[in-house]
Amino acid sequence: MMSHARLLVRAALEVTAGSESEKAISAAKTCVLDYLGATLAGMDERPSVIVRNWVLAQGGRPAATVLGTEHKVPPSLAAMANGTAGHMIELDDVHSACIGHPGVAIIPAALALSESLGLSGQELLCSVIAGYEVMARLGAYMGISHYKVWHPTATLGSVGAAAAAARALGLDEERAVNALAIAATMASGLREVFVGGSNCKHVHPGLAARNGVVAAELASAGFTGPESAIEGTMGYRVAHSGAGNEKALSGLPNGKMHIEDTEFKIFASCRSAHTAAEAGILVKEAGVEPPDIKSIVLEMPEVTAKDPAWGGLDPKNPLAAKLSIAYNFVVALMDGACYLEQFTPERVSDPSTGRLLRLTSVRPSTDMDAYYPDHVGVRATVKLISGGQVVKQVVIPKGHPERPLPVSDIHRKFLGLVRPVLGQKAEGLKDVVMNLDELEETGTLMTLCARPGFDPAL
Amino acid sequence: MMSHARLLVRAALEVTAGSESEKAISAAKTCVLDYLGATLAGMDERPSVIVRNWVLAQGGRPAATVLGTEHKVPPSLAAMANGTAGHMIELDDVHSACIGHPGVAIIPAALALSESLGLSGQELLCSVIAGYEVMARLGAYMGISHYKVWHPTATLGSVGAAAAAARALGLDEERAVNALAIAATMASGLREVFVGGSNCKHVHPGLAARNGVVAAELASAGFTGPESAIEGTMGYRVAHSGAGNEKALSGLPNGKMHIEDTEFKIFASCRSAHTAAEAGILVKEAGVEPPDIKSIVLEMPEVTAKDPAWGGLDPKNPLAAKLSIAYNFVVALMDGACYLEQFTPERVSDPSTGRLLRLTSVRPSTDMDAYYPDHVGVRATVKLISGGQVVKQVVIPKGHPERPLPVSDIHRKFLGLVRPVLGQKAEGLKDVVMNLDELEETGTLMTLCARPGFDPAL
Repeated sequence: MMSHARLLVRAALEVTAGSESEKAISAAKTCVLDYLGATLAGMDERPSVIVRNWVLAQGGRPAATVLGTEHKVPPSLAAMANGTAGHMIELDDVHSACIGHPGVAIIPAALALSESLGLSGQELLCSVIAGYEVMARLGAYMGISHYKVWHPTATLGSVGAAAAAARALGLDEERAVNALAIAATMASGLREVFVGGSNCKHVHPGLAARNGVVAAELASAGFTGPESAIEGTMGYRVAHSGAGNEKALSGLPNGKMHIEDTEFKIFASCRSAHTAAEAGILVKEAGVEPPDIKSIVLEMPEVTAKDPAWGGLDPKNPLAAKLSIAYNFVVALMDGACYLEQFTPERVSDPSTGRLLRLTSVRPSTDMDAYYPDHVGVRATVKLISGGQVVKQVVIPKGHPERPLPVSDIHRKFLGLVRPVLGQKAEGLKDVVMNLDELEETGTLMTLCARPGFDPAL
Repeated sequence: MMSHARLLVRAALEVTAGSESEKAISAAKTCVLDYLGATLAGMDERPSVIVRNWVLAQGGRPAATVLGTEHKVPPSLAAMANGTAGHMIELDDVHSACIGHPGVAIIPAALALSESLGLSGQELLCSVIAGYEVMARLGAYMGISHYKVWHPTATLGSVGAAAAAARALGLDEERAVNALAIAATMASGLREVFVGGSNCKHVHPGLAARNGVVAAELASAGFTGPESAIEGTMGYRVAHSGAGNEKALSGLPNGKMHIEDTEFKIFASCRSAHTAAEAGILVKEAGVEPPDIKSIVLEMPEVTAKDPAWGGLDPKNPLAAKLSIAYNFVVALMDGACYLEQFTPERVSDPSTGRLLRLTSVRPSTDMDAYYPDHVGVRATVKLISGGQVVKQVVIPKGHPERPLPVSDIHRKFLGLVRPVLGQKAEGLKDVVMNLDELEETGTLMTLCARPGFDPAL
């Protein structure tokens, strides 16, 4: 039997400039665009600034740009800063095969190495596709049990980033196997970071991106990892409590690449709460106003109903609010939106939101269990003081491959996030990303993201 | 209930310059000495050189010395290089409470930060004591089940190194709690690296030391981790499959510090094979020569007998040989020694060693199970062609707190390892370490370890 690391490496190395499907290349461009939007908009949040300043204080070989600045650092450090910034506002992409965020782990690794090596935009896209492919296959292999304790963006992300990095570095098969094996033994990230509102969740993709770069750079220099890292009896599968569905390692049928199934967020919250946000907007559109409401019942899968994070009715901080399905429903019902301004510390502690949350109860539903874990569906029953009720149900969130967003929505999202940071340069940046396959050097892209004269407060 | 991270932090912060027991300070000096010996002797092995060259290629703020060179890099990078070099030849210290190697994870972190901050030798020793205390308490808390899949030197080591780093940085309690929490979510290292002879086991302590420094530096800047990182339902205890013996978090009775129970190696192999090495020497001392031997039976605990690493009879590479209990027995019986020259690639593939291994069988024994997991005892029954047999049993290895090595042996080991590297400077270095509590600046120590004019082959 071929080792699982080798199976995954082949998938990554098969991504070759020029030979990929147009759909995969196009999806990769959109992923890079969406990543840059989320990163440029989130990079000045405090946790991101702490990590960025730490990275800049390390200094070192000026090879890869810290996004939003003109400073260059070694690729692993740039990957760490840029991965952290990307995940700050929870508007980065999602993939259901890995129950997590591929873009923030993979793209910073691919960008940092592509820039430092002078690779073309097309080569960058191939690295990104390779990373998504490996991370999604590994995620589908591990299954939902991995998610019980581990944060897949960090744990699967380290291996995905290593695949992207190996592809960017042009490693041969043996060295690429070592890169993935080394990364698998570095993979970490507990889901306890979802609890209590600490900064830690944000840095996980940064660490995954860094791990991927370090693993691939060490492997490139001849450092070896255990080939059985994934399937071995003391390896990744057992340690990370996954079931190990080996069929998933072979990828999708019909030559489709996993990156084509990437989902893009339209709400600034946990993907599992997006159906609730949409249901809240539908209730508002039905004419319900907060003073009309007597009670709200949210039916959802048992797993999320019973989870203190998703099932929570009293979030104390923005991270908890982003995870709380009830909070997402309530603010969407109040504002008709669920975006950045709905998750500020002020909004989270707003008494009028608290009042509606106290009218809300969360219930497990066997109906919704039937769609889980593919979907976290929500049925909202809003009883009115006047006597009637409004019921809205959303099972498949907007952005899922079965309900894809129009690309124009993703472009509009990008411009909305980036114009406040880069002004009129935002439009030009978007055009460059959407024509990445024609860009000669990835470094050009990084330069376009800089805020000239921006001086990080070290 | 106080969070486990906070309980551990208090143990670390209570280590105060000047107020520690003489025994703990004395043990810490010996640990630093033993660490430096193993590191200076191992630092030019190929995996260590790859990591060192990677570190030097990153460059950056010249704050902490890469051991054996005159180059300085940021503390986290120095910790990574120096932790890796320390574990290369498997002569670094061991602690039974953490079923692993505290020195190589903790001391590089403490050294790097103490040097970069200009701390005294006494402050360095306090950081080291703090790191050992936290790592050993956490190890005793997690218990043997943690070891099934995880490499404690890496996983417990990340948290221990964070404690040492937090102590060196002088963090207050809140920031130190964050440091430990961040490190707990970074902790990684699969025991699959024991299989197949890859380089990966060596880098694990380097990564742990690096994780500790990064976590504490981020916490120092205000970055937060989840306080429930250890005991939470999605936290370290559950993820790393530990039972969680809470009493162990309170430390040893009678004010004794865990560092006083550190074990020092006299054989260049896995600690679990040391009883076998000693038994081999005893058989040789009984006058048995290889040509006399008809068969060898090694009785040991069921766990090690059935483990492909420890129970292995046909090691293919030095790492596998260092783990193989039978290999340790056989080379010790042949040479009356079990040191560096017994684990070269040439020796591992030597047909005369292979011949004796083919005469050897490994058997589980309920007698030996009774001592496990405290001890991996071995009873060797060597049948002779002439008809007789020699039986030797060793349960408690030399160096265990119940059979401590004389300090003079540890000094002799240090000089034996370091003289070939530093020549006559070795004796002076030993004296400085044994008077570390009088050293004004840790940097002086690092300068003494340099090989003047040594030019790393980048």
